[in-house]
Amino acid sequence: MMTRSREVQLKRRPSGLPQPDDFQIAEVDVGTPGEGFVLVKNICMSVDPYMRGRMVDRKSYAPPFKIGAAMNGGAIGRVLESKHPEFREGDYVESNFGWREGFCAKGDVLSPLGKLVAPPSAYLGVLGMPGMTAYVGLLEVGQLKDGETVFVSGAAGAVGSIVGQIAKIHGCQVIGSAGGPAKIRFLTEELKFDHAFDYHGADLLEELRAAAPNGLDVYFDNVGGDHLQAALSHMRPFGRIPLCGAIAQYNATEPPPGPNNLTLAIGLGLTLRGFIVSHFNNLRGEFRQQMEAWIVDGQIRYRETTMYGIERAAEAFIGLFTGENTGKMIVQFEA
Amino acid sequence: MMTRSREVQLKRRPSGLPQPDDFQIAEVDVGTPGEGFVLVKNICMSVDPYMRGRMVDRKSYAPPFKIGAAMNGGAIGRVLESKHPEFREGDYVESNFGWREGFCAKGDVLSPLGKLVAPPSAYLGVLGMPGMTAYVGLLEVGQLKDGETVFVSGAAGAVGSIVGQIAKIHGCQVIGSAGGPAKIRFLTEELKFDHAFDYHGADLLEELRAAAPNGLDVYFDNVGGDHLQAALSHMRPFGRIPLCGAIAQYNATEPPPGPNNLTLAIGLGLTLRGFIVSHFNNLRGEFRQQMEAWIVDGQIRYRETTMYGIERAAEAFIGLFTGENTGKMIVQFEA
Repeated sequence: MMTRSREVQLKRRPSGLPQPDDFQIAEVDVGTPGEGFVLVKNICMSVDPYMRGRMVDRKSYAPPFKIGAAMNGGAIGRVLESKHPEFREGDYVESNFGWREGFCAKGDVLSPLGKLVAPPSAYLGVLGMPGMTAYVGLLEVGQLKDGETVFVSGAAGAVGSIVGQIAKIHGCQVIGSAGGPAKIRFLTEELKFDHAFDYHGADLLEELRAAAPNGLDVYFDNVGGDHLQAALSHMRPFGRIPLCGAIAQYNATEPPPGPNNLTLAIGLGLTLRGFIVSHFNNLRGEFRQQMEAWIVDGQIRYRETTMYGIERAAEAFIGLFTGENTGKMIVQFEA
Repeated sequence: MMTRSREVQLKRRPSGLPQPDDFQIAEVDVGTPGEGFVLVKNICMSVDPYMRGRMVDRKSYAPPFKIGAAMNGGAIGRVLESKHPEFREGDYVESNFGWREGFCAKGDVLSPLGKLVAPPSAYLGVLGMPGMTAYVGLLEVGQLKDGETVFVSGAAGAVGSIVGQIAKIHGCQVIGSAGGPAKIRFLTEELKFDHAFDYHGADLLEELRAAAPNGLDVYFDNVGGDHLQAALSHMRPFGRIPLCGAIAQYNATEPPPGPNNLTLAIGLGLTLRGFIVSHFNNLRGEFRQQMEAWIVDGQIRYRETTMYGIERAAEAFIGLFTGENTGKMIVQFEA
């Protein structure tokens, strides 16, 4: 039986791009489950760009991580021992107790995953938070209509790669931006994007004009900054811009200026709408059913970039900002 | 019978704040109405901030004004002679042939006003384009709910002064910003805003925090720039920001940077939506009926700043950017 777990703690608040020694690994007792509690051994954990915001000591939609304490994040594990009626040994559970190999927690804060149609790690990516972010962001926030022209930035990432494929399922013309030729090939050859371009050194507006001469109906923004500015300059009337992330800005020590062309939204009747996935928790069931069906049918493909062992969790996280991942970045633990 | 009309032509494209000699007055023949045409003598004409954009030679939602030609804009006039079956001598008509004392035009491009419940000039303001902009911007774009907290900038202007009063009718707490003590008194004493402040030299965010400690549900943006930035920093979850105008920027020779805190929209689920009144032409009938009822009932008050004679049209227009007007700026012609 597991009695100890290693965990990743925030050692100090990063300034700019996080560094490995902003983090430390500690081994702690996990305890034994009392009444209503469940002991879980994690299989894999998630690192996500939004976690960068929680490393800053400020008010935001999630409270800041504490110095010297384990961080939280999505994880999939299996029940080792349960004293909660809804969990049995061997059950797969989703939790927010990532950044650790195992834990003991009240069953009420865990989500039973039921029967899986894909490996557990997929439930941190395409079938988890990032996949659902793509789904609700494009369909609910972006109000996508069949046949529209869609641009997604960060297109090879966990969210962007799903956004583009859902748009293709809806008969849309899909353009993506990503960093480097391997990701561009992934987008056009494997995911069947209509067009993809490498943003490094690119004139973004010229790329968009060439790829979509008639303009964009939806711009799914994962990046902010220059991407948002360029997209704003190329929107069609009544276009929608789901604001999902701003990875270009998460490590900025001073807030970069916003788009100087926001007034274009007035005449064009554009909508910019921010969201996080938890605003749409009522759609969790619908999302899982639809996405599992698309995966089983082969209509949605996904890729993961995997790092093995909790020792590499910090490296995996930092890699999100240096472009190491294609698709979802996963930290996989020993079986 | 009128055979000649004076008109205001664009002499050269303004750089920065428009100057009187960017404009010139000319006298031209108006012609006599042929079959289907109507001869109209204008009573009053409108000057509006959006016209600044049409003085620039660029693609926008309205085509640019031509050098050496009369400008267009809202006007109310009376029919002198009609060869169109829907118009009779003496009828009040709304047209887009402002910046001139009279004109001859096809009846099809004119709107008969029917019976008026207020002076003709009101149909250029509270009962015209600015009033309808306030109405659709707050209720349709802003999705106002009863009892919310609303901030409107440019609050003493033609649009802002109506926005605040519609919000009061809906039981909202209303905060306005404007320039100078006379306008602040107008807002709080005459229009019954809950709070108004002078933006000159103000710390906008501190003003908003003091006036609305629990944050803003709706920010109706007429100003852009620092006002938009401050409001973004004080929005409540799921707040809405109708983007109506950016008067702070219309005369800028270089586009000023956008708000650097737009990423706040993500976690809070904020919606920023641009619009112009013509996107909602289907609501013209509903608007006029409702607004006339509010005016007759005394629930909506309005003020106009009037300059007399076409010679003063340029001065009236320039005054929009130097804060000369409280309520709608009107250029009134001789009776």
